[in-house]
Amino acid sequence: MKHRFRKDDFSWEGVAAAGYKATGERDGEGFRGVTRHIISGAEGEPSRFQVRYFEVEPDGFTRLERHEHIHSVTVIRGTGYAIVGDAVHDLQNLDHVYVPPMTLHQFVNTGTAPFGFLCIVDAERDRPQPATALDVEHLDKNAATAGKARR
Amino acid sequence: MKHRFRKDDFSWEGVAAAGYKATGERDGEGFRGVTRHIISGAEGEPSRFQVRYFEVEPDGFTRLERHEHIHSVTVIRGTGYAIVGDAVHDLQNLDHVYVPPMTLHQFVNTGTAPFGFLCIVDAERDRPQPATALDVEHLDKNAATAGKARR
Repeated sequence: MKHRFRKDDFSWEGVAAAGYKATGERDGEGFRGVTRHIISGAEGEPSRFQVRYFEVEPDGFTRLERHEHIHSVTVIRGTGYAIVGDAVHDLQNLDHVYVPPMTLHQFVNTGTAPFGFLCIVDAERDRPQPATALDVEHLDKNAATAGKARR
Repeated sequence: MKHRFRKDDFSWEGVAAAGYKATGERDGEGFRGVTRHIISGAEGEPSRFQVRYFEVEPDGFTRLERHEHIHSVTVIRGTGYAIVGDAVHDLQNLDHVYVPPMTLHQFVNTGTAPFGFLCIVDAERDRPQPATALDVEHLDKNAATAGKARR
């Protein structure tokens, strides 16, 4: 089966955009301007992974969080940066980022166009844990990440 | 950790290109001009999937085969087509193809530039089974796939 890519609105035929977080969590609650498409793994496919596309608007950012499951991220649109632990990685088209287990991370759009990436995860996975005040304090004291985290 | 994408040779820092098939299977044995990069999942990452990048040279093609595990494929370079069961899908940048279990499939470059795609699979998976003579006969009798399979 083919999901044709639509350039006009950067989406895939037969793949609906969904909210970033589960029902009950809304834009402004630690993230801003994020949409999610589940390209593969939400339609009963017999696989142990999901392929999702996340798009972050200009000035937008994903939630600063950690979890046991890993992320394999490949940028396919725009520019931004990722906080991963104590490092900040500038990102542009086709750069790849690995987010290890229990590592605080956040994706931030730095451009004037949408910033989008494929993010592959285990289908069976733990729930993300939002950053604590202590985490943010740590990031602000660390030279590489000072001033980079968004809330 | 970041694998920076290198535009000049369409590769990722820290990700080595490898042969398409396991040792003992060589170019010309049912496939032509295919390289593979394992971007994620071959370095002990605690995940149940692997993210690979396959690149097919002009006039090249992957092996016509089937297996129980599925493929989630997203094109990131060039143009080509995929045979998936009895259908042929023309493919260009960012199109997505799902290959269901035990479905004969092959990716063929139709352009003058390399044809490349991300292919995500379960880390634990069965071995591919090459097409049989009967399979090829079937494809040649089926209107959509007639003359499309490469050997």
